[in-house]
Amino acid sequence: MVRIALDVMGGDHGPEVVVRGAVLALSSSDADAVPKQDGPGLIGGSIEAGDIVLVGEQDAIASALAAAVVDGGPATNAGFQTAHAPDRLQGDESPVDAMRRKPHNSIAVGIGLVKSGEADAFVSAGSTGLVVATATLGLRCLEGIRRPGIAVTVRGEKGPFIVLDVGANPQPKAVHLQHYALMGAAYARDALEIAEPRVGLMNIGSEDKKGHPLAREARELLRATAGGYRFIGNVEGVDLFRGACDVVVCDGFTGNVLLKVSEGCAEYMLRSMGRFMAEEGVDDGLRERVLGRLARDVDYSEYGGALLLGVEGIVTICHGRSEAPAICNALRFAHRAVGARVNEHIVELARSVGRAAGPGSGE
Amino acid sequence: MVRIALDVMGGDHGPEVVVRGAVLALSSSDADAVPKQDGPGLIGGSIEAGDIVLVGEQDAIASALAAAVVDGGPATNAGFQTAHAPDRLQGDESPVDAMRRKPHNSIAVGIGLVKSGEADAFVSAGSTGLVVATATLGLRCLEGIRRPGIAVTVRGEKGPFIVLDVGANPQPKAVHLQHYALMGAAYARDALEIAEPRVGLMNIGSEDKKGHPLAREARELLRATAGGYRFIGNVEGVDLFRGACDVVVCDGFTGNVLLKVSEGCAEYMLRSMGRFMAEEGVDDGLRERVLGRLARDVDYSEYGGALLLGVEGIVTICHGRSEAPAICNALRFAHRAVGARVNEHIVELARSVGRAAGPGSGE
Repeated sequence: MVRIALDVMGGDHGPEVVVRGAVLALSSSDADAVPKQDGPGLIGGSIEAGDIVLVGEQDAIASALAAAVVDGGPATNAGFQTAHAPDRLQGDESPVDAMRRKPHNSIAVGIGLVKSGEADAFVSAGSTGLVVATATLGLRCLEGIRRPGIAVTVRGEKGPFIVLDVGANPQPKAVHLQHYALMGAAYARDALEIAEPRVGLMNIGSEDKKGHPLAREARELLRATAGGYRFIGNVEGVDLFRGACDVVVCDGFTGNVLLKVSEGCAEYMLRSMGRFMAEEGVDDGLRERVLGRLARDVDYSEYGGALLLGVEGIVTICHGRSEAPAICNALRFAHRAVGARVNEHIVELARSVGRAAGPGSGE
Repeated sequence: MVRIALDVMGGDHGPEVVVRGAVLALSSSDADAVPKQDGPGLIGGSIEAGDIVLVGEQDAIASALAAAVVDGGPATNAGFQTAHAPDRLQGDESPVDAMRRKPHNSIAVGIGLVKSGEADAFVSAGSTGLVVATATLGLRCLEGIRRPGIAVTVRGEKGPFIVLDVGANPQPKAVHLQHYALMGAAYARDALEIAEPRVGLMNIGSEDKKGHPLAREARELLRATAGGYRFIGNVEGVDLFRGACDVVVCDGFTGNVLLKVSEGCAEYMLRSMGRFMAEEGVDDGLRERVLGRLARDVDYSEYGGALLLGVEGIVTICHGRSEAPAICNALRFAHRAVGARVNEHIVELARSVGRAAGPGSGE
C-alpha cells in the first residue's frame, strides 16, 4: 500500500478543486473525466481507497468534500484519510516567514507525514518555494546527494526529455549539477524506460569552453561521472526539442526560464494556430481536433507534475493553476514514483559512480 | 549614404549564399525573392548601389559573384565595393585564437571599416563569439555604457518584444543589466515605435526577493533608472509571450537559452501541427497556408538579425544558417538601424537618466 499526503490548501483554485482531483483519482467509474494517459512517464499509478491523506484545515476539507460531486451525489470522506493543518497560508508570505510563523501549515504537516513514515509521498499545488524549503529542511538528502533539484518531463519531437533543476536551486555549485545528472539519469531509467540515458548540459554553444564558469566546471564533473549515463556534452535549446538528449542538466534559474518560455511559446503558438486556421476557413470541428491534439502534447499536467529529487520520500509539485484532472494525474504520478523506487535507484547509481571514481569523489 | 560592410565568409552556407543575399538587396526587380516585410521592427531599409562593401577573400568574392544569378545572368561586382580579407577562419578556432593568429580575417577587416568610419555598419553570419569579441575590442563603447549586449526581436501574442542580452556576456554584473535596460528602451522606441517602453527583468517569480543575487541587485538598479522607461519588475517566460513587456533584460546565458528554447519549441510545434493536420485530413494547400503563416510569425530572419548594442557603429549578427533572403533582410535592417540613429538615442537616454540620478550614477 502506498500512502500519499495531498495538500488540500495549495493551488490557485482552492480546496474544492484539489479535493475534486482526489475524488477523481479514487472513482474509477469516472474515467472520462480524467485525461487520457497514453504518453510515457510515471503516469497511471492506480490509487485505492485509503491511499490518499487529505492535509489541510478540517473545515476546509469537510466543505470541499461536500462540494465535490461524485456519481451524482456529494463526495464523502469515505476512502480518505485526513490530517489537520490549522495554520492557513496567505500566499504572499516568504518561505522563511511561513515556516517561522505558521509551522502547522498544510505543506509542513504533509512533509511531516513523509518524514515520520506515515506517508510515502507528498503532492502539493502550493508555493514551490515553500515546498522546496520545507522538504529540504524537513527531509534528509539521499545518500550521496547534496542538494535537491526539481525534475520535469517535457515533450519533444522524439519523445519526452527530463529537465532538472527547474527552480529549487537558482544558484547551484558545479557539484550540484553533477548530482542532478545522476538523479536525472536514474529517474529517466525509471520514468522513460531508457537503459542508458543520454545526459546533456544546458549551455550556449557546443564547444567545451562555452558559457560561464559554472557551465565549464560542471562539464568536467559531468564527464567524470559519465559511467552512470552517456554524457553528450553541451546542448542548446534548439537541440533539446529535436531529441538531442533524455536528460538536460541546468541551474534552477535557467531551467525555470527554459520551462516557462517553452510553456509561453507553446501557448502563443496554439492561439496563433487557432486564429490562422479559422481565418483560412478550417471548419470548427476539425480545428478543435487538431488544436486539442497539439494542446495535449504540450500540456505539462499530462505528465502529472514535477518531482523534487534528492530527498528521502517522494515530493511532487503541481502547477498552481492545476485543475482537478491535473491533481488526479499528480496523485497517480506520485503513486507510480513510489512504486518505481526512484530514490533507491538514485542512491544505487550515486554509489556505483562513487565506487568507480574512488573514495571522496563527488564531494 | 549608408555604407554597410558585409562579411562574405561567415555563415554555414558559404560565400555564395551571402553574396546572393547582397545581390537580392540591390536588385529591386527581384522583389518576389525577398520575404514580405510587413512586421514592425527595423526592416525595410532601402539599399542602393555602392552601399554594400563585400568583405572577404578576393577570390571567394569573385567566384561567389560569378555564381550568383541576377536577371538571368551572373552577378557582377557592379554596385558593390569590396575589401580583401586574406585570413580565412576555420570555424573551430576560439575567438582568442582567431584574433591572434588571423588578424586579417573577414570579421576583423569588417569591424575595422566601421572603426575607421569607412562603413557605418557591419553584418555577419559568422561566429557570434568572434564578432562580439572583435567589436568589443575594436570599437569603443558608447558613452555611459560599460558592456555591449545582443538584442533580438521576438514576436509574441501582442506584437514583438526585444530581448537582451542573448549571449554577448554570459556572466554580467548588475550594472550591465541596468545598461541593457537603457539600451533596450532606446532601441524599442526606434524599432518598435513605442514612446514609453515597458521594461521587465527576466526572473523566476514575480516577488522582489525571487531569483539569484544578480537578479535581486539588478532589480534595484533597473528601478533606479526607470525614468528612461517604465519598469514593470520581474517577468517570467509565460508572461513574455503574452505581451507583458516590450523589453526583457537578462544575462546573456539566460537570454541565449530563452531564444534558442523558443526557437526549438516553435520548430517542434510547427512539425507536430503539420502532422496532426495531415492526419486529421486537412488538405495540402490549406495546411501549407496555415503553416506558412505560422512559420513566418516565428521566423527570426524576418526581423533581419540581432543587433550588438553598446558599441560605436551598427553591428548586426545573423543566424549562421541564414539563407540569402535572411542576409538581404539583415542588410536592410542594418541600413535602417543606421538611419534610425539608435546609438545616438541610447547615449541621450543614458545621459538624461544620469543627470536625473546625479553624478556618478550607473558607475
